[in-house]
Amino acid sequence: MPETFAPDSVGLVETQYLTVKNSLQLDCGRSLADFTLAYETYGELNADKSNALLICHALSGDQHVAGYNSVDDRKPGWWDNCIGPGKPFDTSRFFIVCPNNLGGCKGSSGPNTINPETGKPYGPDFPLLTVHDWVISQGYLADELGIQQWAAVIGGSLGGMQVMQWAIDYPDRLRHALVIAATPKLTAQNIAFNEVARQAIFSDPDFHAGRFYEHNTIPRQGLMLARMLGHITYLSDDAMREKFGRDLREGKLNFGFDVEFQVESYLRYQGKSFVDRFDANTYLLMTKVLDYFDPALQFNNNLPRAFDDTNANFLVISFTGDWRFTPARSREIVRALVVADKKVSYAEIDAELGHDAFLTPIPEYHGVLNAYMDNIE
Amino acid sequence: MPETFAPDSVGLVETQYLTVKNSLQLDCGRSLADFTLAYETYGELNADKSNALLICHALSGDQHVAGYNSVDDRKPGWWDNCIGPGKPFDTSRFFIVCPNNLGGCKGSSGPNTINPETGKPYGPDFPLLTVHDWVISQGYLADELGIQQWAAVIGGSLGGMQVMQWAIDYPDRLRHALVIAATPKLTAQNIAFNEVARQAIFSDPDFHAGRFYEHNTIPRQGLMLARMLGHITYLSDDAMREKFGRDLREGKLNFGFDVEFQVESYLRYQGKSFVDRFDANTYLLMTKVLDYFDPALQFNNNLPRAFDDTNANFLVISFTGDWRFTPARSREIVRALVVADKKVSYAEIDAELGHDAFLTPIPEYHGVLNAYMDNIE
Repeated sequence: MPETFAPDSVGLVETQYLTVKNSLQLDCGRSLADFTLAYETYGELNADKSNALLICHALSGDQHVAGYNSVDDRKPGWWDNCIGPGKPFDTSRFFIVCPNNLGGCKGSSGPNTINPETGKPYGPDFPLLTVHDWVISQGYLADELGIQQWAAVIGGSLGGMQVMQWAIDYPDRLRHALVIAATPKLTAQNIAFNEVARQAIFSDPDFHAGRFYEHNTIPRQGLMLARMLGHITYLSDDAMREKFGRDLREGKLNFGFDVEFQVESYLRYQGKSFVDRFDANTYLLMTKVLDYFDPALQFNNNLPRAFDDTNANFLVISFTGDWRFTPARSREIVRALVVADKKVSYAEIDAELGHDAFLTPIPEYHGVLNAYMDNIE
Repeated sequence: MPETFAPDSVGLVETQYLTVKNSLQLDCGRSLADFTLAYETYGELNADKSNALLICHALSGDQHVAGYNSVDDRKPGWWDNCIGPGKPFDTSRFFIVCPNNLGGCKGSSGPNTINPETGKPYGPDFPLLTVHDWVISQGYLADELGIQQWAAVIGGSLGGMQVMQWAIDYPDRLRHALVIAATPKLTAQNIAFNEVARQAIFSDPDFHAGRFYEHNTIPRQGLMLARMLGHITYLSDDAMREKFGRDLREGKLNFGFDVEFQVESYLRYQGKSFVDRFDANTYLLMTKVLDYFDPALQFNNNLPRAFDDTNANFLVISFTGDWRFTPARSREIVRALVVADKKVSYAEIDAELGHDAFLTPIPEYHGVLNAYMDNIE
């Protein structure tokens, strides 16, 4: 490991690929003849393959969760503060796996990969997926790595939904389920925000009904708007007040439509920089996966019954400032687990930031993760 | 009055117009050589002209606040439930005036009216305004009608900001100030939502840098997105859950991007119908007026000092489910008035609906309005 990396960094890492030749039957009724998952791993798998953690990513995440893909990378993976030697998900104890979800845009089969039937990118022809589809696809990755049972499956936000689905779909394939900043299902308001984001992308003439790859363009404006809107829901009102308040970029009003308030500058920057690293069709797909998630639905809207057959120990964590998936939504999960007579620990972290808090190294939060992980066999 | 109107309706009403030939100096540094205000009135002005109420409209409102402009109108004005014989703003006692704000799109000088200097619609050349500019322009309307002092100035949301500004700018020209569902200034989050709405409009290729009139088109998609987003902030999470929940339009998921959830259908309908009745440049302007409002700014961010010279009696009303301008924001106004030693009554109405509650006939809310108005001389 080059000296440029901190001692608690996993250092240089490389994306790996698994192509599964089995046909994957999907909830939408369609199937994929085969599929590829891009993934990264950190740490060493032990002899009895019992020390593996699966990290599930959220809407705009990917397989690069820790370390650096190149010595020139300015930033490490998206959850680097949690993964590495001595960190909550300690690579000196655990073998950590994070795939790019199916439908993603960082190497897994998805809208921006080639449809073998046409020789062109799937685009809008890539099937819409569910969290259950993801879990099944991740199961193949576990098989390939020889992991019969994860020590823990871990995820925040949409990642937390995958954790719940793992516990439901494969009760014996995980010992612990860490469900962070999640919800048992989206509210109408959550869906509404997703719908505005989708319409923003559809409205962009450069979207070309999802076939923008063939037009050598991207729906820059639409994806930018979607991301700007997303960012509002990732931060609390208080955090935005703290961070930007009503600060003016030039110290005075200009009575025009260029940036006047700092918060406008922040949002435009976030929107623009996202466009260069994310695929619009994947964004659309991810919002639909979110909307569809509702594990209680097939149990007559009875969430405890959805958890009835699970065997994992649960840790549920929420953040006080999170208005996207409020602590109340996490408490619904906890209550359902209690009613279902499951082992569950719950921590509500005092954090002003908002939904994004789950990605930040808040001492109380990392303390909870450390304490929980220390007790995992 | 035709028999088709209810006895408590103001019945058929007609928009009137006032053209002020004085130059209006604006906060942005520019001026209008003359300007027109479209307005409606209901009830009769008494002999000493002491029974006049001014209604100030919000972002997407206009002068048509009560009654019908035609016997064929399917809906009455936007606050018809509050205005008419026997209603909270009782036209058998009061003479009620409501102008379309300067910069509006329903007959007052604004982006969609002709710029005398070019002979074409102002479009983006119409100056950006402040709430103070509006109050000054409304002062001319009061002068024209011979109203030296309003019995009350009344408004909700952005309308409530105009009420505060009236009390500050013309301390002796109103006896009562009814500030409903308002805020002393927008938060960074409020500004952020406005900014996404603006960028949605700017991103629409049919916007043509605001000169879409000359291209015989309108930025339909952009304005639709802005309105969809607005609607999310007008309703509470609870109200949306109550109204739509996760109901599916066709009772099942279709795994596609057509409407699946009812809330999507609602938002698309709201967005599309708005486009036919509102001007995109006016929408942009209104969001800026909102962003700029901050009466404490010129008093060293001291809100009580901003109210120091006011003479009106205040009634401040907020709604528990309003997350756009929360009750906490109304309490800031109340506290500042108390500190400034002003007369203020405050009612926090238990209402799940959200920001839009101020437009609905909630019995407790109308009870408060009735009680307050009954005591107005």
